[in-house]
Amino acid sequence: MSETNMVPVGIVCSPFKERGDAPRQGRLSDELSKITIFPEYLDALLGLSEGADIFILCWFDRSDRSVLQSHLGGDETRPIRGVFASRSPNRPNPISLTLARLVKIEGNKLTVKGLEALDRTPVLDIKPYSEQFDTPIKE
Amino acid sequence: MSETNMVPVGIVCSPFKERGDAPRQGRLSDELSKITIFPEYLDALLGLSEGADIFILCWFDRSDRSVLQSHLGGDETRPIRGVFASRSPNRPNPISLTLARLVKIEGNKLTVKGLEALDRTPVLDIKPYSEQFDTPIKE
Repeated sequence: MSETNMVPVGIVCSPFKERGDAPRQGRLSDELSKITIFPEYLDALLGLSEGADIFILCWFDRSDRSVLQSHLGGDETRPIRGVFASRSPNRPNPISLTLARLVKIEGNKLTVKGLEALDRTPVLDIKPYSEQFDTPIKE
Repeated sequence: MSETNMVPVGIVCSPFKERGDAPRQGRLSDELSKITIFPEYLDALLGLSEGADIFILCWFDRSDRSVLQSHLGGDETRPIRGVFASRSPNRPNPISLTLARLVKIEGNKLTVKGLEALDRTPVLDIKPYSEQFDTPIKE
């Protein structure tokens, strides 16, 4: 696999400074976070609008990439799961996936609600939520 | 940002051999794909069960990482959007996000339905779908 390096396209500015501060899922908090998109990627925001539901993919640079199994929710009274069966931030490729609400757009600064990322976490990608594709197949 | 290299944790075996073969979204096809998880990551599968809805994150190694804007759906009659406002495979970090159904687990081989990835696409991560966290915030 060639050229597998990731480039940060922006950075999170959040009230969560250390690992203990962040909720297990941003959804559990009403705090707002800001994302600064680096100027060279500003054109990629064309068509995003305030109020949109967006998936934010970050690179959890303070995660432990060697972990393959852990207790659910980091709680030792709960079962052990493989990281591919959990949403643990510790995993071989610590890419986070959070569905957040885009509250405000001011140039290259995005204000979002529902993001659990720590302050200064690199942002890798933003994808618009699609009800058609992002809800389970019905059979 | 240190250590931003991704490691493939598995590889896709799919009927889609070239870019023109793959549907725009796997959801549009009933084809099954297989994912081979590399043996060193087998422990990370603990707790995944057949029938589960899973997000599969792949590295679209045949994408153009320099594209910041494109026509929706690759259709020139449709509006131009920034890649952060579209699900185009071409983006600065070509990480795909597909919600698929885990049909079968046989050791390190997963059979999935609803994955649009090309044959031999590297797999980066698997995350279980959570209705609680992966549906838009209601207000």
